[in-house]
Amino acid sequence: MIKAGVIGATGYVGTELIRLLEKHSDVELKYITSKSYVGKSYDEIYENYRGVFDMECHEQDIEKIADEVDVIFMALPHGIASKEIDEKILEKAKVIDIGADYRISDQEVYESWYNTEHGSPELLKEAVYGLCELKREEVKKTRIVANPGCYPTCSILSLSPILKEGLVEEDSIIIDAKSGVTGAGRSLNIGTHYTECNESFKAYGIASHRHTPEIEEQLSEVSGSDIVLNFTPHLVPMNRGILVTAYAKLKSPKSYEEIKAVYEKHYGDEHFVRLTKEGIFPETKWVKGSNFCDIGIKVDERTNRVIVVGAIDNMIKGAAGQAVQNMNIMFGLDEKSGLEDVSIFPG
Amino acid sequence: MIKAGVIGATGYVGTELIRLLEKHSDVELKYITSKSYVGKSYDEIYENYRGVFDMECHEQDIEKIADEVDVIFMALPHGIASKEIDEKILEKAKVIDIGADYRISDQEVYESWYNTEHGSPELLKEAVYGLCELKREEVKKTRIVANPGCYPTCSILSLSPILKEGLVEEDSIIIDAKSGVTGAGRSLNIGTHYTECNESFKAYGIASHRHTPEIEEQLSEVSGSDIVLNFTPHLVPMNRGILVTAYAKLKSPKSYEEIKAVYEKHYGDEHFVRLTKEGIFPETKWVKGSNFCDIGIKVDERTNRVIVVGAIDNMIKGAAGQAVQNMNIMFGLDEKSGLEDVSIFPG
Amino acid sequence: MIKAGVIGATGYVGTELIRLLEKHSDVELKYITSKSYVGKSYDEIYENYRGVFDMECHEQDIEKIADEVDVIFMALPHGIASKEIDEKILEKAKVIDIGADYRISDQEVYESWYNTEHGSPELLKEAVYGLCELKREEVKKTRIVANPGCYPTCSILSLSPILKEGLVEEDSIIIDAKSGVTGAGRSLNIGTHYTECNESFKAYGIASHRHTPEIEEQLSEVSGSDIVLNFTPHLVPMNRGILVTAYAKLKSPKSYEEIKAVYEKHYGDEHFVRLTKEGIFPETKWVKGSNFCDIGIKVDERTNRVIVVGAIDNMIKGAAGQAVQNMNIMFGLDEKSGLEDVSIFPG
Amino acid sequence: MIKAGVIGATGYVGTELIRLLEKHSDVELKYITSKSYVGKSYDEIYENYRGVFDMECHEQDIEKIADEVDVIFMALPHGIASKEIDEKILEKAKVIDIGADYRISDQEVYESWYNTEHGSPELLKEAVYGLCELKREEVKKTRIVANPGCYPTCSILSLSPILKEGLVEEDSIIIDAKSGVTGAGRSLNIGTHYTECNESFKAYGIASHRHTPEIEEQLSEVSGSDIVLNFTPHLVPMNRGILVTAYAKLKSPKSYEEIKAVYEKHYGDEHFVRLTKEGIFPETKWVKGSNFCDIGIKVDERTNRVIVVGAIDNMIKGAAGQAVQNMNIMFGLDEKSGLEDVSIFPG
Repeated sequence: MIKAGVIGATGYVGTELIRLLEKHSDVELKYITSKSYVGKSYDEIYENYRGVFDMECHEQDIEKIADEVDVIFMALPHGIASKEIDEKILEKAKVIDIGADYRISDQEVYESWYNTEHGSPELLKEAVYGLCELKREEVKKTRIVANPGCYPTCSILSLSPILKEGLVEEDSIIIDAKSGVTGAGRSLNIGTHYTECNESFKAYGIASHRHTPEIEEQLSEVSGSDIVLNFTPHLVPMNRGILVTAYAKLKSPKSYEEIKAVYEKHYGDEHFVRLTKEGIFPETKWVKGSNFCDIGIKVDERTNRVIVVGAIDNMIKGAAGQAVQNMNIMFGLDEKSGLEDVSIFPG
Repeated sequence: MIKAGVIGATGYVGTELIRLLEKHSDVELKYITSKSYVGKSYDEIYENYRGVFDMECHEQDIEKIADEVDVIFMALPHGIASKEIDEKILEKAKVIDIGADYRISDQEVYESWYNTEHGSPELLKEAVYGLCELKREEVKKTRIVANPGCYPTCSILSLSPILKEGLVEEDSIIIDAKSGVTGAGRSLNIGTHYTECNESFKAYGIASHRHTPEIEEQLSEVSGSDIVLNFTPHLVPMNRGILVTAYAKLKSPKSYEEIKAVYEKHYGDEHFVRLTKEGIFPETKWVKGSNFCDIGIKVDERTNRVIVVGAIDNMIKGAAGQAVQNMNIMFGLDEKSGLEDVSIFPG
Repeated sequence: MIKAGVIGATGYVGTELIRLLEKHSDVELKYITSKSYVGKSYDEIYENYRGVFDMECHEQDIEKIADEVDVIFMALPHGIASKEIDEKILEKAKVIDIGADYRISDQEVYESWYNTEHGSPELLKEAVYGLCELKREEVKKTRIVANPGCYPTCSILSLSPILKEGLVEEDSIIIDAKSGVTGAGRSLNIGTHYTECNESFKAYGIASHRHTPEIEEQLSEVSGSDIVLNFTPHLVPMNRGILVTAYAKLKSPKSYEEIKAVYEKHYGDEHFVRLTKEGIFPETKWVKGSNFCDIGIKVDERTNRVIVVGAIDNMIKGAAGQAVQNMNIMFGLDEKSGLEDVSIFPG
Repeated sequence: MIKAGVIGATGYVGTELIRLLEKHSDVELKYITSKSYVGKSYDEIYENYRGVFDMECHEQDIEKIADEVDVIFMALPHGIASKEIDEKILEKAKVIDIGADYRISDQEVYESWYNTEHGSPELLKEAVYGLCELKREEVKKTRIVANPGCYPTCSILSLSPILKEGLVEEDSIIIDAKSGVTGAGRSLNIGTHYTECNESFKAYGIASHRHTPEIEEQLSEVSGSDIVLNFTPHLVPMNRGILVTAYAKLKSPKSYEEIKAVYEKHYGDEHFVRLTKEGIFPETKWVKGSNFCDIGIKVDERTNRVIVVGAIDNMIKGAAGQAVQNMNIMFGLDEKSGLEDVSIFPG
């Protein structure tokens, strides 16, 4: 049994982690912490756990927790984890940080986009960007994983194969992304007040969203050349799910079959990446509640562009689920352990 | 391993059954049938199963299926199951009918409310009304279970204890119930067209809904006297969940503690019935995706009424989940097998 | 032209008032105030007014405003208006208070349910409870109107006729009410955070909601005997609309036609109360965006109860619209002025 | 008074037309037709009209109607209007066709994208594409207006200024569009069944939607060169509203101020096109229920792209509202007549 601690267990990502870890047959939850609910039993905060899980929330004493667990999941706002984690912690326990602090390898880029100081830049080199399908081998060996952002997970998985193969123009990429409201977390905000976002649709963070440099760094690495792209997130009036519609110009005309073959080569053996059949495209409902990333492609001969549509559950493959997948890889478990659920439909 | 067949696998209740049975560790799904999708693979119909479950849908040949399975789940519109099931089938396999055909013991009452002929009235006596918490011992021994309706499950569980104990006036009961739209099934209908029911709320079937005699029969049996009540269902613009608000007049004043004690006596050992703490009331989100029925009570001294609020997931405790719970009881399995999930929140 | 001021113009009720008054052909908006947005232009706060209405929000100096307008609308949280209004104000301008301060005639009852001191009890006698269809003559003559609460408007209109005629047992009344989320206002709250109330349904304020004494006082007056009843509000995941399902026991059996005749007698000449045909019941979508109250009735011979279903738009007939209707009456205008819109459907 | 007839009055566009025409002070509705509801009173079909508008639906006898009205609005599925309209009709009444039949000037292009024969190709030359802000002068003089599609209205208004001025590369345009579900109409369809599209998000018609050639033709005319672009519509789980996020590559770097100036030059005098301030972008809620098109722009210096966000109410500026605006222009009325409403918020 892997002993696990969750730091920040009462945010939305935290509660999704609790749900996945609680039913993971190889994991024993030892410690959960919360800033707002110290001393409270978990089922008083999240009543779905009524009569099922009543562990008490503790203060966030990471050193102490590291003594008692094998793996620490950090589900905190950006800027905090990097001030808590250091060599001493990593000598005792593996860390999976679901926040943004270790996702960007260049300290300066991080600090300028996130407008905060990095607390442990010396660990940036060791931290592995845990997009499992791309970095499986590195994840196996590392002590610290930077769990990818929700939009980046879906965007990078959608575009990697054609960039890796050098099929599209590097400066032609546009990622138009749409997310359900859980992506904004549980903190109160006028923009996520029910009557302000229900029955409405909007873009936000246009040409300025913090997931942009994260996506660009990974796609640059994949393609071997500097990728600068447009990323536009939108807010969908629904609880969960991300859909990415990505556009890229083909360097030379290719057929649907040729492009499909490239995706199959890259993802044919991947359990959690599912390619749709020709003419079928992902919808968020089919992945909601699961760790899958569904991908569909279209080649538009009129414009010589590839349009790739990707879908994930932002809370699972885009956060807690991928964190568990990373844990599975780090500890040599079956990668699918604890992540077997398909979407509950209609759900 | 219990071999199972599902008749009507492609409706909403059918697909929820598939989901629960597929991950049930003691069950092997052997046969699924569909009226509309014969010959199609399951993941073409429900794309959440992409790459996960591609069993082919067969025609509905119940005799043949009965030869090959231990239990048959029927998820059909009312009036059909009773024409398919007979002694010969029951000699080969146990049957759990999720439709309405065997829920009402009096053939005439059934036929007048459902406006159809019953196909096998000779089985009405043997069929057990499978509200597990009330009929566990009978379910253990029967070959055929009438799985309760969604509204009745929530209504009867909410009101049984005080009626059993004779605490409330038998003619004072009002059940004001609210359901998500999955309750209306997958058949196209102007009332469940997205833009017709989104952002609106309505009552329907006022003083005429078919679940009325089902609730009355069970509550009459529990209380030992004839119950005639008002039941009013409403449509909530959301996918899943039922909330019941039930009102009853106390025969003599009782305190909250006294009434609570009655509920604890009845449900204290029940895993799937959860009583909320004083001042806390059920919300559908806390049970959605789970087999729980949450119940909260209020004693209003001003009016001398008890108000009971109950909540279930209409597709699980109100349909497929309770069917699996009945199967677990019939086959001597742990009653919780395959039903361990808590609600995915926010989901 | 009637000169009007709106105190509290930037809450949800305030903005609905602005919308209605802005297009009212007999009204000139002179002053708007806001606690949070002093100095801001209205279209910066509510962008639907972009390029259309850019009046500046002022501080709440009621004396000064009273000097310049004919009527003051107060759209404030309870407890504030009664401390601002006094004889001096009323000598200068008529007041329509959309808050709760003057709705309950008994100061003690108000103070115990609202847990605050009343600021001007001397005005309670003069204030008219502005449920237009019941109090039209009093509204014509008063200087101060207490605009009814949203739930009370729908509940009282639904039940008045049968209570007035003495047809139902006074202690048998149950009002099960459901409201969209605008009823909770614009203040941030975990309960109205999008992902907390979307896709869920709950009851709240069971046997303790502040609209209870308001409903009871008015129905007692109508019926001529003390009414004590159960009122249970619920939260519906939608923006607007209230549906009330009310139950009452008939003193002696009556047919649908007899009860319908009573409603027609009371509301036959009312423009804003619409009776549905037999077998048809109100849905919130048909009144959303309008000042109508739709009412449908059912007589259940099995239980000898009348079930009355009423629907309003909580922001219009339940707040700002009825306030305008009261103004129309107070100033001798056509009661329908500025309130001609039907529901935008699907909206 | 302008006498008007509405052909196809009971679809969603039809009912929106009825709502707008009914309250238009210069219009008298003389005739309404319906395929499904002949002989029915309008308030039986759409109950928001209960007690307000009970005109009877007639059969679709266009010749007869043309004799009695000044203008005929056609709200029919594509392919029908062009078979009904001919020179004889146009001699008697003006026609505003809200369907697709006259939107594309090239008969062959129309027939290949719509897969049907055109019924009156001889009228294609006379028909004016009624995007009012671009074609006002032509609309004034024509007898027949092709009312633009919903997506094209928003897309063309968003992109015209920069194409007109030749600022962006003609082959760089990507239009990623999102629409509420009313866009799919009232016909029953599994894709718009409540529980199938609620809480989900998807793309559809990728690189194949029929609005593509319509957008391309108009933008080509505006820019003076052949535009071939990518247009991808998506379905948002909400009733109303379209948001367009459009991307185009600048030919040479331009500042935000320079681009903004171009939009102000084009739309500065337009009542129904509203430009947002820097850093503010349109949201569908601010235009819902109104005839406005809100436009916001962003210049991304990193990628040298302009990102334009446009929002309309698909049923109003995208259909019935623009039809009324066209009527106002054709008959020399104030263009804003009957279109004064701002969005009801929260609505």
